[in-house]
Amino acid sequence: MLAGMNSDKKLSTISFKHKHLLGIDGLSRGDVYSVMEIAETYIKKNREPDKKHAILKGRTLINLFFENSTRTRTSFELAGKRLGADVINMSVSNSSTKKGETLIDTAMTLNAMHPDFIAVRHPESGAVHLLAAKVNCSVINSGDGCHEHPTQALLDALTIYRRKGKLEGLTVAICGDILHSRVARSNMKLLTLLGAKVRIVAPPTLMPPFPESFGVETFYDMKKGLKDCDIIMMLRLQMERMSGNFIPSIREFFHFYGLDEEKLAYAKPDALIMHPGPINRGVEIDTRLADDLNRSVILDQVEMGVAVRQAVLELLGRNIN
Amino acid sequence: MLAGMNSDKKLSTISFKHKHLLGIDGLSRGDVYSVMEIAETYIKKNREPDKKHAILKGRTLINLFFENSTRTRTSFELAGKRLGADVINMSVSNSSTKKGETLIDTAMTLNAMHPDFIAVRHPESGAVHLLAAKVNCSVINSGDGCHEHPTQALLDALTIYRRKGKLEGLTVAICGDILHSRVARSNMKLLTLLGAKVRIVAPPTLMPPFPESFGVETFYDMKKGLKDCDIIMMLRLQMERMSGNFIPSIREFFHFYGLDEEKLAYAKPDALIMHPGPINRGVEIDTRLADDLNRSVILDQVEMGVAVRQAVLELLGRNIN
Amino acid sequence: MLAGMNSDKKLSTISFKHKHLLGIDGLSRGDVYSVMEIAETYIKKNREPDKKHAILKGRTLINLFFENSTRTRTSFELAGKRLGADVINMSVSNSSTKKGETLIDTAMTLNAMHPDFIAVRHPESGAVHLLAAKVNCSVINSGDGCHEHPTQALLDALTIYRRKGKLEGLTVAICGDILHSRVARSNMKLLTLLGAKVRIVAPPTLMPPFPESFGVETFYDMKKGLKDCDIIMMLRLQMERMSGNFIPSIREFFHFYGLDEEKLAYAKPDALIMHPGPINRGVEIDTRLADDLNRSVILDQVEMGVAVRQAVLELLGRNIN
Repeated sequence: MLAGMNSDKKLSTISFKHKHLLGIDGLSRGDVYSVMEIAETYIKKNREPDKKHAILKGRTLINLFFENSTRTRTSFELAGKRLGADVINMSVSNSSTKKGETLIDTAMTLNAMHPDFIAVRHPESGAVHLLAAKVNCSVINSGDGCHEHPTQALLDALTIYRRKGKLEGLTVAICGDILHSRVARSNMKLLTLLGAKVRIVAPPTLMPPFPESFGVETFYDMKKGLKDCDIIMMLRLQMERMSGNFIPSIREFFHFYGLDEEKLAYAKPDALIMHPGPINRGVEIDTRLADDLNRSVILDQVEMGVAVRQAVLELLGRNIN
Repeated sequence: MLAGMNSDKKLSTISFKHKHLLGIDGLSRGDVYSVMEIAETYIKKNREPDKKHAILKGRTLINLFFENSTRTRTSFELAGKRLGADVINMSVSNSSTKKGETLIDTAMTLNAMHPDFIAVRHPESGAVHLLAAKVNCSVINSGDGCHEHPTQALLDALTIYRRKGKLEGLTVAICGDILHSRVARSNMKLLTLLGAKVRIVAPPTLMPPFPESFGVETFYDMKKGLKDCDIIMMLRLQMERMSGNFIPSIREFFHFYGLDEEKLAYAKPDALIMHPGPINRGVEIDTRLADDLNRSVILDQVEMGVAVRQAVLELLGRNIN
Repeated sequence: MLAGMNSDKKLSTISFKHKHLLGIDGLSRGDVYSVMEIAETYIKKNREPDKKHAILKGRTLINLFFENSTRTRTSFELAGKRLGADVINMSVSNSSTKKGETLIDTAMTLNAMHPDFIAVRHPESGAVHLLAAKVNCSVINSGDGCHEHPTQALLDALTIYRRKGKLEGLTVAICGDILHSRVARSNMKLLTLLGAKVRIVAPPTLMPPFPESFGVETFYDMKKGLKDCDIIMMLRLQMERMSGNFIPSIREFFHFYGLDEEKLAYAKPDALIMHPGPINRGVEIDTRLADDLNRSVILDQVEMGVAVRQAVLELLGRNIN
């Protein structure tokens, strides 16, 4: 049992008044703690030989991925299968979907096959909302453009909670390519909702416009940004999303914004290092730090990812009838 | 219960004396109504939260696709999984199969793994028959070249039946690229078997040789072809199968053969619009007509697709021993 | 029951004191007969309509393939599913993994998702050992570079055993591209372990260095190599692994080293022809010989493949707790 809300309710009676999980907006603290509490039960179960539940037996989950992502797709596939659902993978290359109508046609076609859940990843911000407005089933945003990736933020929050025992009052520095990062956007929203103090650290070219609208502090200097923080959340340098020249060179980026021992020394001694993966070793993070199991919780994040997605599927599934 | 044949038999005792479903040839009216009646039970089940049956538990379905088709492959995958079968997807790119022997080697290899069903799509007409002659399991033609696509015709017939209450005596106009269309071929056979009057409407370059052999009427003028018909079945313009220059331009094709309000006005006021998908909006069909839920049954077709494939798997599965 | 070891033990109590199956090294004769005995039960079960077991219910198998292989991947997928496991396929193209670190990162990421088994194919010899050293689950080498492919050797041994009633004392000629063949390496080890006399037959350019270290006889002349042998094991000409010019031409290779009626006449009259597939017809083997069901046991090998993989998964699964 997490020391959060819902502590006197039975897990099986928690209600989750959302049809879709499209982003962090609209979630209450109670919703987030519900996901984390239920995820906690799956963490245990996933460590046992028999990881199977029948809770979604007969339900259908479609993983609809318009971008490659072995990691997130596999995490959703495992989450669905371990809950007993039938899981269908659909990889749609960008080349075959050039127009908005085609996305909707794809969505409507799948909808007619009566899935219960569609987990969607799409390279364009907002595409998942568009799709959700058209279908009957629950839609889970698995990453849309530079917009949101809510299950990533939920698994990050759970990872922090389990290590630090709380989120409220912690100082979290999100560092690197904030501009292109849906992970950063979802985390800024979720962490501030849960009472953490959030900083974003980036060169000016990788800072989003109007960062103050997220209620976060901005830093252009990594050492100042990391000073006395509890959590360092590094981001992947999204080469594939950089349409212009955002950084002078990889080497210079690492020099100023890559996480190494020297910069890490500014954070609290027990500060945790996070990264959504996959890591660009020597670009965002020194390779030894990534592997330091005393500091890095990168693999915890992966483990929490499956459990959080199971919790989200279970909670959304309670509304199916 | 459909108002067709088999009405006084229990569904569970219907027999289906075919090992394979390679085409419409060889099916009796009774066979077709058996498929439709059993499909009817799956339409209901697929709309419930628990869509799972155990009827094919322990059976293996292999989807062997030598051409890309997310839609049909997903439909078969869902059909198999919802019936409890283990489903394996195999996508074989054309590049790796240049000779007929290799198709047979692939078939024999899969056969040695003891699948119960293989659903095959192949770019060459007749390839599926060749394969079926070599294996022990049931083979379902999921589209072979310009030849046949029998589950598409069955789902189309079920869609019409459920909307119109009958097939006998209806006038159906199949329009567009008849020459390259396996959907058209299977539908011409099935609809005439069921007593519908079938017309084909196409420019001379997209008309098949000897159309009279199918027992259908031919029209080169769309307005004349649609006059007083009950069903308008548009076909996808199969760009990828056009080896020469079959149409002067997309714009001219749409002008003469694309379905728009003006041409639609020649059909009966309650005429239904069908399309096997995916739609080329503005090529074969005006985009507003495609989305008009009073006229277009395109999404019904998708829904019937899963149910019809479940029915076909169930019936073929009764012969496994 | 095989006439080997373990004959007086119940199959369900056989223990297999290995965490991984990385190669043939380290396996005892008893281990091999355990795999073969359990595989025997699955051969029977796979021929029945209901092929499903619950023995690995709730377990997770990940097929992690860094090289394309529809055949082996399908065999593992079927094996896992028929035992009730949840099976996840991950195809990783070579392009996305250029450095050893990335392989380890991929492995560690998957490991954090708590699979019970990972079946790995990788183009580099030794990659699978590297991966196995990092993860908690059981790793099955499904082919690494020119190194080992142990389940192939186990299925080959079972195929021979079932036809000849023994392995001890048989003369087996492995012919063709020995240098690049992991199948040859695993078979040389396993067949000598089981008491067969192994010959390798190849042109000098396709002979491995120090062949005597495998305890086999070497032949550069096909007719001498095949003389009086019981088993002819042809190998696939691994064009994709030949970095230089190893053979003068396909035609010349077939003339000197391809299996045809004339060369086959030197073997014993009841000699069996084997090939791991897929066959290059007319390159390694005359097309009629490949299809001669009196001589060729190529399709038996495929059938044994699924059963042997089920046996390996079952035995390794007994150590999960």
